[in-house]
Amino acid sequence: MLVEKILRQALEEDIGRGDITSEATTPSFLPAQADLIIKSPGILAGGEIAGRVFHLLDPDLEFQLLASDGDQVREGDIIASIAGNARSILAGERVALNFLQRLSGIATATYTAVQAAQPFDVTITDTRKTTPGLRILEKYAVRIGGGKNHRFGLDDAILIKDNHIKVAGGVTEAIKRARSHIGHMLKVEVEVETFDQVREAVAVGADVIMLDNMEPENMKEAVSIIAGRAVAEASGGITPAQVASIAATGVDVISLGWITHSAPPLDIGLDIRID
Amino acid sequence: MLVEKILRQALEEDIGRGDITSEATTPSFLPAQADLIIKSPGILAGGEIAGRVFHLLDPDLEFQLLASDGDQVREGDIIASIAGNARSILAGERVALNFLQRLSGIATATYTAVQAAQPFDVTITDTRKTTPGLRILEKYAVRIGGGKNHRFGLDDAILIKDNHIKVAGGVTEAIKRARSHIGHMLKVEVEVETFDQVREAVAVGADVIMLDNMEPENMKEAVSIIAGRAVAEASGGITPAQVASIAATGVDVISLGWITHSAPPLDIGLDIRID
Amino acid sequence: MLVEKILRQALEEDIGRGDITSEATTPSFLPAQADLIIKSPGILAGGEIAGRVFHLLDPDLEFQLLASDGDQVREGDIIASIAGNARSILAGERVALNFLQRLSGIATATYTAVQAAQPFDVTITDTRKTTPGLRILEKYAVRIGGGKNHRFGLDDAILIKDNHIKVAGGVTEAIKRARSHIGHMLKVEVEVETFDQVREAVAVGADVIMLDNMEPENMKEAVSIIAGRAVAEASGGITPAQVASIAATGVDVISLGWITHSAPPLDIGLDIRID
Amino acid sequence: MLVEKILRQALEEDIGRGDITSEATTPSFLPAQADLIIKSPGILAGGEIAGRVFHLLDPDLEFQLLASDGDQVREGDIIASIAGNARSILAGERVALNFLQRLSGIATATYTAVQAAQPFDVTITDTRKTTPGLRILEKYAVRIGGGKNHRFGLDDAILIKDNHIKVAGGVTEAIKRARSHIGHMLKVEVEVETFDQVREAVAVGADVIMLDNMEPENMKEAVSIIAGRAVAEASGGITPAQVASIAATGVDVISLGWITHSAPPLDIGLDIRID
Amino acid sequence: MLVEKILRQALEEDIGRGDITSEATTPSFLPAQADLIIKSPGILAGGEIAGRVFHLLDPDLEFQLLASDGDQVREGDIIASIAGNARSILAGERVALNFLQRLSGIATATYTAVQAAQPFDVTITDTRKTTPGLRILEKYAVRIGGGKNHRFGLDDAILIKDNHIKVAGGVTEAIKRARSHIGHMLKVEVEVETFDQVREAVAVGADVIMLDNMEPENMKEAVSIIAGRAVAEASGGITPAQVASIAATGVDVISLGWITHSAPPLDIGLDIRID
Amino acid sequence: MLVEKILRQALEEDIGRGDITSEATTPSFLPAQADLIIKSPGILAGGEIAGRVFHLLDPDLEFQLLASDGDQVREGDIIASIAGNARSILAGERVALNFLQRLSGIATATYTAVQAAQPFDVTITDTRKTTPGLRILEKYAVRIGGGKNHRFGLDDAILIKDNHIKVAGGVTEAIKRARSHIGHMLKVEVEVETFDQVREAVAVGADVIMLDNMEPENMKEAVSIIAGRAVAEASGGITPAQVASIAATGVDVISLGWITHSAPPLDIGLDIRID
Repeated sequence: MLVEKILRQALEEDIGRGDITSEATTPSFLPAQADLIIKSPGILAGGEIAGRVFHLLDPDLEFQLLASDGDQVREGDIIASIAGNARSILAGERVALNFLQRLSGIATATYTAVQAAQPFDVTITDTRKTTPGLRILEKYAVRIGGGKNHRFGLDDAILIKDNHIKVAGGVTEAIKRARSHIGHMLKVEVEVETFDQVREAVAVGADVIMLDNMEPENMKEAVSIIAGRAVAEASGGITPAQVASIAATGVDVISLGWITHSAPPLDIGLDIRID
Repeated sequence: MLVEKILRQALEEDIGRGDITSEATTPSFLPAQADLIIKSPGILAGGEIAGRVFHLLDPDLEFQLLASDGDQVREGDIIASIAGNARSILAGERVALNFLQRLSGIATATYTAVQAAQPFDVTITDTRKTTPGLRILEKYAVRIGGGKNHRFGLDDAILIKDNHIKVAGGVTEAIKRARSHIGHMLKVEVEVETFDQVREAVAVGADVIMLDNMEPENMKEAVSIIAGRAVAEASGGITPAQVASIAATGVDVISLGWITHSAPPLDIGLDIRID
Repeated sequence: MLVEKILRQALEEDIGRGDITSEATTPSFLPAQADLIIKSPGILAGGEIAGRVFHLLDPDLEFQLLASDGDQVREGDIIASIAGNARSILAGERVALNFLQRLSGIATATYTAVQAAQPFDVTITDTRKTTPGLRILEKYAVRIGGGKNHRFGLDDAILIKDNHIKVAGGVTEAIKRARSHIGHMLKVEVEVETFDQVREAVAVGADVIMLDNMEPENMKEAVSIIAGRAVAEASGGITPAQVASIAATGVDVISLGWITHSAPPLDIGLDIRID
Repeated sequence: MLVEKILRQALEEDIGRGDITSEATTPSFLPAQADLIIKSPGILAGGEIAGRVFHLLDPDLEFQLLASDGDQVREGDIIASIAGNARSILAGERVALNFLQRLSGIATATYTAVQAAQPFDVTITDTRKTTPGLRILEKYAVRIGGGKNHRFGLDDAILIKDNHIKVAGGVTEAIKRARSHIGHMLKVEVEVETFDQVREAVAVGADVIMLDNMEPENMKEAVSIIAGRAVAEASGGITPAQVASIAATGVDVISLGWITHSAPPLDIGLDIRID
Repeated sequence: MLVEKILRQALEEDIGRGDITSEATTPSFLPAQADLIIKSPGILAGGEIAGRVFHLLDPDLEFQLLASDGDQVREGDIIASIAGNARSILAGERVALNFLQRLSGIATATYTAVQAAQPFDVTITDTRKTTPGLRILEKYAVRIGGGKNHRFGLDDAILIKDNHIKVAGGVTEAIKRARSHIGHMLKVEVEVETFDQVREAVAVGADVIMLDNMEPENMKEAVSIIAGRAVAEASGGITPAQVASIAATGVDVISLGWITHSAPPLDIGLDIRID
Repeated sequence: MLVEKILRQALEEDIGRGDITSEATTPSFLPAQADLIIKSPGILAGGEIAGRVFHLLDPDLEFQLLASDGDQVREGDIIASIAGNARSILAGERVALNFLQRLSGIATATYTAVQAAQPFDVTITDTRKTTPGLRILEKYAVRIGGGKNHRFGLDDAILIKDNHIKVAGGVTEAIKRARSHIGHMLKVEVEVETFDQVREAVAVGADVIMLDNMEPENMKEAVSIIAGRAVAEASGGITPAQVASIAATGVDVISLGWITHSAPPLDIGLDIRID
């Protein structure tokens, strides 16, 4: 239901008081067919989302997916076909493509990072650096690309960052406060920058320790300090190209903002035809 | 009011049922101060937006802008300072930064394109390839970067694209239908791919002719066919690096999807301190 | 989707916590039939809207239109028949009629004005003097009556009125500012009251010049000053009865607030029967 | 809170993505003053509503009412003055006037009917024939004009109309069903067309009897049948001009759809000035 | 439509960003069947509501009611069966049960009170002490249990309470003000605490007199003062166990907050099976 | 912001089209004072919520809290005083009390359970058996009463219940699937009914094991099987009176639906006075 609200708002944003071009140039009901065509290679994500965009606009449109989310697609692949009122197809084109291109771009970037991390048995996750309003969709695209999701928001896990540590007066104090505040179903992660902080975090029983913006060799050292007593997570401005070298440090998890805020969109187009 | 709705939804998305980390680690009211700090050079956009995010979350926060949208900023510049309840600052940090980084990234990319086009007196505009839900903000960032806005949606101008032409049965027919449908306050643009279509569009009185995905030399030829009888607009997968060579063809306008869908975010951080 | 929201709110406004009269007097499911009957002559507008009201209330109601929007209807004409649950028909009656009567009233008034203007090849348009919340529907009714739409809102064209001119310091300055602010897809209209202002507006390249509250003979003079270099629009408290004399002045467009804010509703009723 | 939602939607409808004319022609902050001026005589209604429109748009605008709802106003009267940012005043002008003119028109029409009914000690009420979405405001304007409100919706009283009687199988049966369905806090009104129905309604204990579309002499007869045992209400296409002759029949209440669906708007304007 | 909004919000509240347990443990589409089973005896209310919860979540689920609202149910009774996607059934279980248990609890409590009052021909009604946000559903459950509804809100009847009397300066003044304010379709109730107030209320023509927190013998005396000239209503912290003794005083109506704010939920479970 | 939406809807639900009693009996602006008074002993929760209700209704009301959430209150205690417009105070009374009484009732019930569990160092938590739409407030009241919160919804932790186990084909399989589906920030709880299931759950590494509806002696045995390798949680229809005997079994956590779905409201009243 959350997703439907996002799609509806996107359609309202684009269509506003009406698609005057299609109304002007196209008869009220002209049967048409259209294909969604891949124009650059990658991982598809958002196929069903595109279908729901068209369905919201006009429940009589027939939308048939010819590829599944997670599929590797190549230039020229037809991933879906649409049949129905030409006006409806034209009115929904841009919104459907905007979602499809962005989500496939994220899945593709995630997939690249996951491939790079695979030899090291390291988990790739996202961050909260997502597009405002689209988090639930972007985190879905990350899963499609083979990644796992980190926290969805500020409410489903504790992540103590540098600013919280400053405010609480130290790693130990911050983690203790967190433990006493929450119930038995939540985990506690802490972001650290020094080896001393790593040691504190382990000592006080952090579930996950985020090694923030560390050089690979320092990260390696930190991992050996942790010694399996907590999950070790690498984070901080990491690009897909750096994933392999960081994975080699022995961390358990690498979280990447890049895959949601900087992944280039996958090029996809829509071609209509009248029979 | 539209903007407030977008910001509110972004906060709801991130905060969900509450910022449990800040609630756990920080006293209910602890006075704090924070700075928004630039970490890579570019054009600032979204300063007031960031302020409104914090204000929506906690009207008692004092937010002071130290730079204006449109300013060139450098690494280390403090663009705003915030004072008030530490919990509120921590809860709003990520959402404020997500907007600020994205909008500044768009303004920066636009600015680069505008600079490249300047010697040729060509207007840079955006497209409808914006992030679903954020169009009004992203188009604002384009203006801050020195660009102009193309259509806001499907409802405020006629833009006859290839699919419409197919459906209507030709450039002339499509434009005629459009003219007879609309009132006297709207303009008609048509997307063309061949010189014949350019000639048709001019003959039937299009206000603007979009030259889609043409090679620069063909674009030059098209401009000479138009001969000032309509506005000539270049479009279709153009990157900022290609702007200068396209501007040199004599077109009046270059529209770029890249500046909204592929502009990298500007790196900006928040540092808190307790006095 | 905008329209659905309007209809839904109208139903919520009328039904509130439930139609207690129908619940009290009618079995939970009693099959019934009903006719929508014209009680005074005019132009029908809103037939599909009425159908959507009933459909929103109860998707199982069968609503069959027997006349189309734009048709001339006479007393006694049955324009639609409805079949289904008696309670649903009774609950939707007033809301459906309120829309139908208002929109048909607007279409009828517009049609009268369009007929009066026809010998002079003048376009009849509406204004922004519409009922708050119903603009998209009322502008639709104007089109059904044969009129064209002026601006939909403050965002889809420039219309510089007397108050803007005062603030900007003159017609020329106001138009120049407008041109430099907007992109290549928007038109600029200016409201003028004197011949000097007409000359200024033409000189600085206004697309449309609104002759506000001028006497017909002055309007004629203004049209001859414009001499085809801009669209000439007459406006200002014009009633349908004055349309012919104003059309005779040679203006291109006449805009009328009367057709939306003062058009009397068309009388339409609903008759139910149980077989 | 309901009212605020209506005003907010009206502003969103008109302003859409922004008031581009004011943004283009007016500096971001230019102090201005404006007056709301009456252009035709009537009863003022909606003064505070207009103030809230401007306040919603820009909380820094100072809005001072110089007349109260219910006042008789004449051409030239200044009913309110506004001070603040010129852009905000210009952006809110049309929406504020659209409400003010409509509500004052309704109050004026109601006042006329109330005056006509006064010698007969008859109450004037409205109906549910209001503008979809604006009922709460229009019913307020009726009260300002000296009228009383009939039902607000389908949920706050029983009104058994001809269609309900048909479905229930008669006046007596319908009223009995209604009584047994509802609690002790609701009244039961029934619409009748014949003297027999009047007798039935009285016998079965209707609280209010609506005499629908009866000739004045028949209405007089019906009133004598009722003989004070129920409230007698006249209804059905009554215009203000007919109020006196109907009031003379002895009915207790006259309900008029005309005052909400056909009242002409009161002419009111806004004049801005820069000091 | 109001009800759908309540159900939708309840689902959004519970499901948030997704039912991760069902997504993790259950294939995307696994056909399953489930029963809703009564675990303690009472009156069923909310059967259709439960069906709508599942339908909103997944329109493809088949929901078959095997008992009707108002039925007496016993431990072990299967009141509905559901067939369809296992994930959808699991995701909707808790929300459907939360509604069903609460509403059936209210119907059961109301039924008990109605049974106790039956020998005395006294009407049992609810109050406005309902759960915020669920009033329309809880008042429905009261009707299912055999009770009648008192006011739905502050807008559909006049109920002058002790605080209003204080503010108005007395019972007589408060009732007079109320009468002159409202139209002919609303009733006036007044809450009294002394015999003098009862006499005042009768004298000035209150429709209903609420005897607040009176001892049974005083209530009896008050009823004899009223002597049928107004409806006599007992109210104020009455439990179902006290209903009979209060009904014996001769009051016409007993209103109980207990049945909505303190009724224990009926125990109901959901059992799934895979064939 | 979530909370504000809940309060706003509750006010809209109660006030509807307006508080006609207060409008009728009270001058538009009459300064008044009111006290919120405790009528039965318990733990206060919702004081600030009540203040926000009044503030939403009328920002000019002064609301002063005289007791804090979590305080033990007794009959006669004044917990807050309100000053301002009498109409606003009267209009908000019922909604504010409905929240305050319910939340204080929950806090009081939780406190009782927490006291009973204290000698055993056992954590008391809530469940998802909360009132639809009010979960965030009810879980807050649980914390005020000294309890901890279990999951907020289906999205912030894995809880594998009997129905999931049936669908997945066993405890081991269900937990394995869950582990491979989620990221590193979420915990996995499983509901078990037999000792074999307890052993499976421990073996496959469940974080939390819920002992559902077990007799105390069996629970004791299960705790000894778990032997600290997972958190042991008791659940299933437990009342506050049973808490001590269950706590004595050695479980770590007891979760109670009773405290949210069956806690009786705390009796609180509002007294107004005019000076």
